[in-house]
Amino acid sequence: MWQDLEPVGRAGSGGYRRFAWSREDHTLREWFAGECARRGLDLVEDRMGNQWAWWGDPDAAPGQGIAIGSHLDSVPDGGAYDGPLGVVSALAVVDQLRAAGIEPSRPLAVVNFVDEEGARFGVACAGSRVITGAMTPERALSLTDADGTTMAEALTAAGRDPSQIGQDDETLRRVGAFVELHVEQGRGLVDLGVPVAVASDIWPHGRWRFDFPGEANHAGTTRLEDRRDAMLGYADLVLGARKEAQQRGCVATVGKVAVTPGGVNAIPSHVTGWLDSRGPDEEAVRAAVADLTTRASDFGASVTEESWTATTHFDQPLSDRLRGVLATDAELSVPVLGTGAGHDAGILASAGVPSAMLFVRNPTGVSHSPEEFAERDDCHAGVDALTACVTDLVSP
Amino acid sequence: MWQDLEPVGRAGSGGYRRFAWSREDHTLREWFAGECARRGLDLVEDRMGNQWAWWGDPDAAPGQGIAIGSHLDSVPDGGAYDGPLGVVSALAVVDQLRAAGIEPSRPLAVVNFVDEEGARFGVACAGSRVITGAMTPERALSLTDADGTTMAEALTAAGRDPSQIGQDDETLRRVGAFVELHVEQGRGLVDLGVPVAVASDIWPHGRWRFDFPGEANHAGTTRLEDRRDAMLGYADLVLGARKEAQQRGCVATVGKVAVTPGGVNAIPSHVTGWLDSRGPDEEAVRAAVADLTTRASDFGASVTEESWTATTHFDQPLSDRLRGVLATDAELSVPVLGTGAGHDAGILASAGVPSAMLFVRNPTGVSHSPEEFAERDDCHAGVDALTACVTDLVSP
Repeated sequence: MWQDLEPVGRAGSGGYRRFAWSREDHTLREWFAGECARRGLDLVEDRMGNQWAWWGDPDAAPGQGIAIGSHLDSVPDGGAYDGPLGVVSALAVVDQLRAAGIEPSRPLAVVNFVDEEGARFGVACAGSRVITGAMTPERALSLTDADGTTMAEALTAAGRDPSQIGQDDETLRRVGAFVELHVEQGRGLVDLGVPVAVASDIWPHGRWRFDFPGEANHAGTTRLEDRRDAMLGYADLVLGARKEAQQRGCVATVGKVAVTPGGVNAIPSHVTGWLDSRGPDEEAVRAAVADLTTRASDFGASVTEESWTATTHFDQPLSDRLRGVLATDAELSVPVLGTGAGHDAGILASAGVPSAMLFVRNPTGVSHSPEEFAERDDCHAGVDALTACVTDLVSP
Repeated sequence: MWQDLEPVGRAGSGGYRRFAWSREDHTLREWFAGECARRGLDLVEDRMGNQWAWWGDPDAAPGQGIAIGSHLDSVPDGGAYDGPLGVVSALAVVDQLRAAGIEPSRPLAVVNFVDEEGARFGVACAGSRVITGAMTPERALSLTDADGTTMAEALTAAGRDPSQIGQDDETLRRVGAFVELHVEQGRGLVDLGVPVAVASDIWPHGRWRFDFPGEANHAGTTRLEDRRDAMLGYADLVLGARKEAQQRGCVATVGKVAVTPGGVNAIPSHVTGWLDSRGPDEEAVRAAVADLTTRASDFGASVTEESWTATTHFDQPLSDRLRGVLATDAELSVPVLGTGAGHDAGILASAGVPSAMLFVRNPTGVSHSPEEFAERDDCHAGVDALTACVTDLVSP
């Protein structure tokens, strides 16, 4: 499976560019459908295009289905593991169950969520947000990418009917539990010396768009006192975000910027910067963003909250059950880790679907980068752990 | 002529996007060729593709030709006047000479310089730099645009042979004097209450590329102390540039930035910022850039000088002659202005071609913006002034 995935959307950097509803995304979705067909799974798409491949009839036992999987899209120049590790591992679990002669007593699904990273349209977990109602279809369809293409246009170009997207209770009713395996994105497991952890919660996190106004003018002939240079407020935001994060014990990043007109010899008339901020404490994150908003308003900026997700606690009974299974079967000490990264499992948990996550050790902690890596043995340990968990969950 | 030009390359902003060797540029070049053909001028292109339309045989009187004109390309979202006012006025001068029954005793050319703004490949006045030898063909051909297209590839795509570009002494030998009319790009004429000025000099000016290194990583899961965020050094450059300019009496602008990978939830692994700096005093500009280079090196940045042009003095006898003509004919007091903007006339002056400029009043001082403007009466005054100058220059 890794050999099939390796070339899809690979950029010159060695990282991946696999954006929602792009050609690369289509290739990955077709690959996923092929792997599911080869295993005799019944593939259905929900109202947002998330792919669910069922082993057993989910409608024969409503609310009893077990779903495992993750996503296949990437951030710009992202790593190979973020998302695909969960999908590949879930498919490998099916193979291991078959090899062991296990016949699930409950329906089992492998799922590929669409547009988890939000790299193209700016809102992460768009696929799970729409089917749970956390994002309205109107909002989703009006999101635009860097070329000004709306999600509605992108869906139409992909041969889909934008008017059909929306909350999908029928799909969610089938799922009694969702377990997402994911490469760790920090160094939490390195110090502990074990390959797999169970997740506790997802930090509160959000994205804010800061729009700084200015006035386009000639960079050579306009006196400093006559300038309204939108870049100055942006630079203040970047430095202020780091300072606020340090003071308040959270993290803050400005990783994307758009400048109008963007010429070397033109004073910027408009600069948009996107702030990503998260932390273990919700109030600290909110306070940091409030301070940055006040600071930016001195430059005439407007601030738009593009997304906000409060602390997400994964399902405690489910997580405890997974820890119990892993402690017994593998004789491992099973750590519990919080994370600053958002995941579809968090969106589903917030919507009331019992959800949990497994993390696989990341030796460098690097993620969202071509350098992202996981050892082969650790990946296998992840598959074994997920197989043990699923075996337990689908037992009579 | 303005009606023909009005729609070409017009962006949603109301400004223009007319970049070298783009489709829009081709349309403008064809328009220019048509206007010249209609007036019976002989159009020749030099080794860089600059268009020279001659009235009379320039090779019959080497070194005696008088050239007038400017450029048709624009910065991103540039105004309608920067460049085109000089080309349209030069063509109008031909019409006025014809209407007055004047037969030039020396060859007269209307010229359209290619790629004056450097908006696509980053080096301003590329057309005049190459033919004068101020930029080598090797360097020009290897310049890249935002999509990674080299100028060599752009020329090839435009049906040209990149191996043919280079210094063109044959063309320059034909020109005894060059006069470029241009819209003023500051408010120098507003306070003086007159529509036309003669240029004295062009401030020293340059462009520097600052490359800040970082390490791509996840914006949520990477601790602040583990980060190498390339955006921080960039923000420091932006604020430092303004401070240096204030302290040293020059101007400095960071109007263009490129971020890798550029995702909202990815720590930037590389940020490139372009600094434009100019001022009346060469040493002050040099000192500001040196300080910024030192400051950026604290962030591990490398700094590349993409262009540097020392103070350019226009030809004194020619400028004095134009002032004399205008003072006599129009009974105007004729001011002399320096400028922070670079021009092809400056490149030619530096190469030893006697060159001068006329500036037409800009009521707001705004340029490199859709808001750039000149009053119709002032444009007509500019044409009349240039006609008077040319009439004098081509008299027996």
